[in-house]
Amino acid sequence: MTDTALGDVRGREGFYHYRQYSAVELAQSRTFEDVWHLMFYGELPDAARRAAFTAQTAALRRLPEALRAALPGIARASGPSGPLAGLRTALSLLGASAGFRPLYDIDTERRRADALAACAAVPTLLTALHRLGEGLEPVEPRDDLPYAANYLYMLSGTEPEPERARAIERYLISTVDHGFNASTFTARVITSTGADLAACLVGAVGALSGPLHGGAPSRALDTLDAIGTPDRIDAWIRERVRAGERIMGFGHPVYRTEDPRSRMLRGVARSFGGPLVDFAVQVEAQVEAILAELKPGRELHTNVEFYAGVVMELCGLPRAMFTPTFAAARVVGWSANILEQAEDSKIIRPAARYVGPPPPQPVPTV
Amino acid sequence: MTDTALGDVRGREGFYHYRQYSAVELAQSRTFEDVWHLMFYGELPDAARRAAFTAQTAALRRLPEALRAALPGIARASGPSGPLAGLRTALSLLGASAGFRPLYDIDTERRRADALAACAAVPTLLTALHRLGEGLEPVEPRDDLPYAANYLYMLSGTEPEPERARAIERYLISTVDHGFNASTFTARVITSTGADLAACLVGAVGALSGPLHGGAPSRALDTLDAIGTPDRIDAWIRERVRAGERIMGFGHPVYRTEDPRSRMLRGVARSFGGPLVDFAVQVEAQVEAILAELKPGRELHTNVEFYAGVVMELCGLPRAMFTPTFAAARVVGWSANILEQAEDSKIIRPAARYVGPPPPQPVPTV
Repeated sequence: MTDTALGDVRGREGFYHYRQYSAVELAQSRTFEDVWHLMFYGELPDAARRAAFTAQTAALRRLPEALRAALPGIARASGPSGPLAGLRTALSLLGASAGFRPLYDIDTERRRADALAACAAVPTLLTALHRLGEGLEPVEPRDDLPYAANYLYMLSGTEPEPERARAIERYLISTVDHGFNASTFTARVITSTGADLAACLVGAVGALSGPLHGGAPSRALDTLDAIGTPDRIDAWIRERVRAGERIMGFGHPVYRTEDPRSRMLRGVARSFGGPLVDFAVQVEAQVEAILAELKPGRELHTNVEFYAGVVMELCGLPRAMFTPTFAAARVVGWSANILEQAEDSKIIRPAARYVGPPPPQPVPTV
Repeated sequence: MTDTALGDVRGREGFYHYRQYSAVELAQSRTFEDVWHLMFYGELPDAARRAAFTAQTAALRRLPEALRAALPGIARASGPSGPLAGLRTALSLLGASAGFRPLYDIDTERRRADALAACAAVPTLLTALHRLGEGLEPVEPRDDLPYAANYLYMLSGTEPEPERARAIERYLISTVDHGFNASTFTARVITSTGADLAACLVGAVGALSGPLHGGAPSRALDTLDAIGTPDRIDAWIRERVRAGERIMGFGHPVYRTEDPRSRMLRGVARSFGGPLVDFAVQVEAQVEAILAELKPGRELHTNVEFYAGVVMELCGLPRAMFTPTFAAARVVGWSANILEQAEDSKIIRPAARYVGPPPPQPVPTV
């Protein structure tokens, strides 16, 4: 059991928090940089500190030349595996070329500097890898835009409308951290060996790339596409449930209530309105009713992925970038966990139970 | 708690095993390929199967052209961070360019094929990265040499003497697996998300790069250098112990007895003989005596790193390659753990305890 002061998830109450604040409330009232600061320094910044921190991190968005030069090769080689596999390689190279040192060999300030550099670089890396994969030139970061707006800008090459930038910012804030999920835990186990920050982040990116962890927001949207029209919802869902298939975007291993991220993102989606949102709300209502009828007592509600997909679609993100965008938020949470774990210097040593044939058996000769 | 049939460590007995066989006995009587086969397929090969498996894996040593072309850039960028950071990047790129697919989307045979390709490539990657870092051309693998001999050959460019190849082979076999250490556990956590094999291995390499996990065999040898001559042993060690410093190469968190790997590798070292071995044996005896006197009841003995460093030095390995050589063995153990974990499809979900100020506190306005 590991102690953390970064936050927690209360599955029965449908509540999660960063430090002592409701994550949803933070998403509604604060900037991404504010929350980043809260996770790294333990407190929300005041206006002056916000300005300084926003400028400091914006200045770190530009990639070192050696890394920029390597990106076309990485994008080409990672083609079929997509931007997350490319990010894994690029972050590994970033850490090696920046000379990130073992975490236990450096002090808190140096660790935080490495983490700031890595977090600031992730949106630049992801958008460049995506554009290179599409045959487009990367768009250089702008340091006059906040984190979320600059992310959309680097992806499309045009400055986003304010409500889209704000919608993505809310999504990003709501996704920064969420208890000891597999990627966060991976980052902390690697940290506990004293490895460098890049080693920890690369492991976390690898875990997030697993379909059981970070893989579903685009699939939930694929479900909406597959249903197609409101009149087909009922038959489509009943058929899937009868076949024993999971309905993507519904159900969560921890929440026994509505997922608080889902509720918040539904509100963001509704503020846009339009046929996709209306359809999503209809599908949600019918699926919940059908699941309550067919699987009574199971409390299956939309999870974060359902409306996250809708919001990202409304903001113009290509579906291949849905999980990578999740990574662009979660890298801040991973880093905060790494910084916290690095203050402890005990290696995490889990237990296993051997269940094979009893040893020692004599080794047979060939 | 996770079940495994791959092996276990019995700290009180000073015994560890792969499957149902003593690991030390395997190191003494079997080839590296035999043990690799045992870990992947659950049984030792007979003579015909050994020949087929050795030829199959030897044919996988050559790197895909795209990866080979990327290595000089990776070696250049990873310069100060060394071959393990380079391996992390190169394995990530290997997986992406080979199109490794999520583990839960492919069957056991396909997973094993990916794992064989990755394990066979690791010695080629490591030796190429090391040589490029030294300003030398990589040496192409030879498929007529066994795994261990080919590793030494690619490193130096000359075919190793048989007793050196055999000594390194014993070291490699003894290091394939060792319970749920941090890198193995990292690989299994990432596996449990359904990520691809490269994501799992890259996380494991990251954990191994942590000084608390894979970092000590060259430092133990540095200790021998620092002591210098037999007459200085006593004063040097007493001073370190009095200053509260750890003596590198001594003590293990699990073994309460002599480390069985240490005992086996001492035998390997003694079969070479010479002044380094004599000095190491003298240091071991004096350190154990002094530690028994100054820290009675603590049972501090040499661990695997002490004689591993000596054996690798005797085999002509440069110190920068000591931990990478550990990785060249352990990648087989990681892969076996990944293959075993992938047969289960439950995500590993650890627990955390929130210890910060009680939420929810109202979010202050800026």
